[in-house]
Amino acid sequence: MVLERIYDVVVIGSGPSGQTVSFRLTNTGLSVALVENELVGGECHFWACIPSKALLRPPEVVTEVSEVEGAKQAVHGMLSVESVLSRRNKFVDQWDDSKEKRALEKAGVTIVRGQGHLAGPRRVIVCSKNGDNKDIVTLVVTQAVVLSTGSRATIPNVKGLTETQPWTNRDATGAKRAPNSLAIMGDGAVGCEMAHAWWSLGTKVTVISKHDRILNKLEPFVGERLMKVFKHRGISVRTNVNVMEVEPRNHKQEHPPLNIRLDDGTAITANELLVAVGRTPNTDKLGLETVGLKPGDWIQVDDTCLAEGVEGNWLYAVGDINQRALLTHIGKYQARACATAIIARAHGSLTYSTSAGSMPSNSYEPWNKWVATADHVAVPQVIFTDPQIASVGLTEEGARSLKINVRVVDYEIDTLQGANLHTDGYTGHARIIVNEDRHVIVGATLIGPQVGELLHPATIAITCEIPLERLWHAIPSFPTMSEVWLHLLENYGL
Amino acid sequence: MVLERIYDVVVIGSGPSGQTVSFRLTNTGLSVALVENELVGGECHFWACIPSKALLRPPEVVTEVSEVEGAKQAVHGMLSVESVLSRRNKFVDQWDDSKEKRALEKAGVTIVRGQGHLAGPRRVIVCSKNGDNKDIVTLVVTQAVVLSTGSRATIPNVKGLTETQPWTNRDATGAKRAPNSLAIMGDGAVGCEMAHAWWSLGTKVTVISKHDRILNKLEPFVGERLMKVFKHRGISVRTNVNVMEVEPRNHKQEHPPLNIRLDDGTAITANELLVAVGRTPNTDKLGLETVGLKPGDWIQVDDTCLAEGVEGNWLYAVGDINQRALLTHIGKYQARACATAIIARAHGSLTYSTSAGSMPSNSYEPWNKWVATADHVAVPQVIFTDPQIASVGLTEEGARSLKINVRVVDYEIDTLQGANLHTDGYTGHARIIVNEDRHVIVGATLIGPQVGELLHPATIAITCEIPLERLWHAIPSFPTMSEVWLHLLENYGL
Repeated sequence: MVLERIYDVVVIGSGPSGQTVSFRLTNTGLSVALVENELVGGECHFWACIPSKALLRPPEVVTEVSEVEGAKQAVHGMLSVESVLSRRNKFVDQWDDSKEKRALEKAGVTIVRGQGHLAGPRRVIVCSKNGDNKDIVTLVVTQAVVLSTGSRATIPNVKGLTETQPWTNRDATGAKRAPNSLAIMGDGAVGCEMAHAWWSLGTKVTVISKHDRILNKLEPFVGERLMKVFKHRGISVRTNVNVMEVEPRNHKQEHPPLNIRLDDGTAITANELLVAVGRTPNTDKLGLETVGLKPGDWIQVDDTCLAEGVEGNWLYAVGDINQRALLTHIGKYQARACATAIIARAHGSLTYSTSAGSMPSNSYEPWNKWVATADHVAVPQVIFTDPQIASVGLTEEGARSLKINVRVVDYEIDTLQGANLHTDGYTGHARIIVNEDRHVIVGATLIGPQVGELLHPATIAITCEIPLERLWHAIPSFPTMSEVWLHLLENYGL
Repeated sequence: MVLERIYDVVVIGSGPSGQTVSFRLTNTGLSVALVENELVGGECHFWACIPSKALLRPPEVVTEVSEVEGAKQAVHGMLSVESVLSRRNKFVDQWDDSKEKRALEKAGVTIVRGQGHLAGPRRVIVCSKNGDNKDIVTLVVTQAVVLSTGSRATIPNVKGLTETQPWTNRDATGAKRAPNSLAIMGDGAVGCEMAHAWWSLGTKVTVISKHDRILNKLEPFVGERLMKVFKHRGISVRTNVNVMEVEPRNHKQEHPPLNIRLDDGTAITANELLVAVGRTPNTDKLGLETVGLKPGDWIQVDDTCLAEGVEGNWLYAVGDINQRALLTHIGKYQARACATAIIARAHGSLTYSTSAGSMPSNSYEPWNKWVATADHVAVPQVIFTDPQIASVGLTEEGARSLKINVRVVDYEIDTLQGANLHTDGYTGHARIIVNEDRHVIVGATLIGPQVGELLHPATIAITCEIPLERLWHAIPSFPTMSEVWLHLLENYGL
């Protein structure tokens, strides 16, 4: 006999998005079951943001101290690779999720361990995860099911690739020791961060990019500058090439390397190959077919994160799987909006955009609490390489493609006193994209040490559509690096 | 015969405020003479912000690296005091102003060296500064005179104090070696920064405060926490005491110390005594009496920095001497507004608030480019102690005294993932003051490592009066420290 339990809301996937939804719903008195197949805490905590940043910070601060006269004299040793790795292990709680689990249970969330999948409307079946697929429990849902199962590394169809068991972000953030050499397929945030992290820990790194520069979705100066830094450090970047084939390891050798054949006729030899070319949504085992959706697809949602194409207005999707922006902070933001929408709908104070005609006129005003409106205009991202990279909103190219009357304003951070006080010989660059018709910032991109913490002012300016003439009166303190915002506006002509 | 020259504008004092006015005016084609009696660059560049931050950063980054597991293993030595001091010397260009002078002259500003003073309306006489007080030149002004002579350390009337030639900010930021011991009269930003700086460089430091805590104009938690840190490090803080008398050095001893007698009957012995109890405006030698103002007084100005109580609308005062907020970035902000007002008035597009009836209705709208409106609501300040302190707008007490319907929201930064990734065991605290009637932030205060760069979002929110419900949609990146702004809004109840 299969156990059946009733909950107001069932959340499948316990990463930051799923946790945020769960905390918010349970805090308002709704009963919540949170289904998790792996570790409670998800990809971000155990295999992505947290371990990568834990690895990246020690080399960053050693570089910082080495670039401050008077302080650098205190440095006589090297980074301890062993201690950096054990720092990483501490930040992921040795891959033990009891702390995260306890916090959720203390808040009143019921954790159900196992593989959850939909079994028709408002019904979730959880199977044991030990492989026998035995049903554990059926969860009957009164209000909503929230899918937040995230994504996994895409393994492209390259001859020999799968067989060689390449690294994904999980191996790259979790490795127990630094490989002698590492090749990286992919030139995005994960590829660049891991290139820097393992180079810092002594690995010989080669980045394989099919574009003419790395980080090609960002402003061109970002990839160009980071490539120059990589080159200077001895991180090799191969551009405009594709991996054709990965030859099997020759197991007659000790620690046999991989031979990675590229489409320009050359080859790269490396002990490990990290694949970081994109993400695949974890939607293949969710029973989407039982509710009219296609397993393996990204899930389309409206601004309340309500899934489109599903009858009855009960299915939501937050975080990576809705493909709006695959970033932890965006997932958490969607989760806050989604939880607010579920609560408002449970109380009848918010209707559904899909039920035409029944929607009160103000329900979907663009910046209400139950809509993740910022997803469309102000998605910030920080890449924790050294130098850091920070961006939000549109690039120049993106703005022009939207036919915006664009003005580009640049500032060379090198001349900023606060930056030079921070590290001697500071180098960095900042750009804002201004909508000239509306006199508002629509995009910002920075590269330089510690620019990650300089981004939020731009995110506010874009999100809140602050006219430049008013923003002008927000004075950054002297001599902070935040004065970059003053100089950008001065360069604009204010 | 005295030389007479005609300029559109004469600026007296070449600190950041005077320079900013000069650059802006000369860029629009007005002829500008900038009069400077000491080094071109002023107090901030040579004897205040720049040298103090140059001294403070090396110990800060050594502490940072020592608090990151994996990185701290690279540190085996001590800060080099000698190198820290020579770093400071480099930032102040060895107290040589040719670089600053060249930049101004290149822009078209005429530098006139000497002591400038008013000689009636629109007339400035510059005397030689070599003590003979011989007139060099008379400057006749067509548009405006801008006073920006700044301030100097106030030496209070304490028995024996002047005779012992105490340190001011100039000595404290410029000392060639670390004294064995240093007593500091005063518990504000200068006192606290210099206490930390010299303690870092090996000096035994005692802070003498007449209040029950240091930094008593800020939120109470700031002073309380910094006092705890100081105590832990061995920086002594004596509260609720006043200096009664400073006994003369006994010159029979080698390096004779000072004996500083307090009004609680105790005494402090120290090699040097820094006086940092307030500032006195440099207005005593400006010839203010020739235009109806009182020498030695602060100069009252309107929001365009036009001096009040002077006939004819031609005298402006920017920076410290108008007493609105004695901070470099505020001086520069006023200078930008002031220059804009002078230009607009030169072109007849802006009238004078003092000429009642003639003012177009929109000239003084609160956030125009020619008014320094933010002075009234959003003055940011960063104190570069370790931990850093950052504040903007009102404290709780300040807001309550204005009868604002206040809500105080706190957040313990210790629990923030971005902060812990930055330094293991991060400790800090953040507070916002919300005007509950208008749902906007009116004040923010933070303490913790590197919080200086976290302040600007609050400055924007306050200046631009962003409703919290909209600010909510500005997403900080994970895992940055900027997420403090998310957690504060969550704690508010969003």
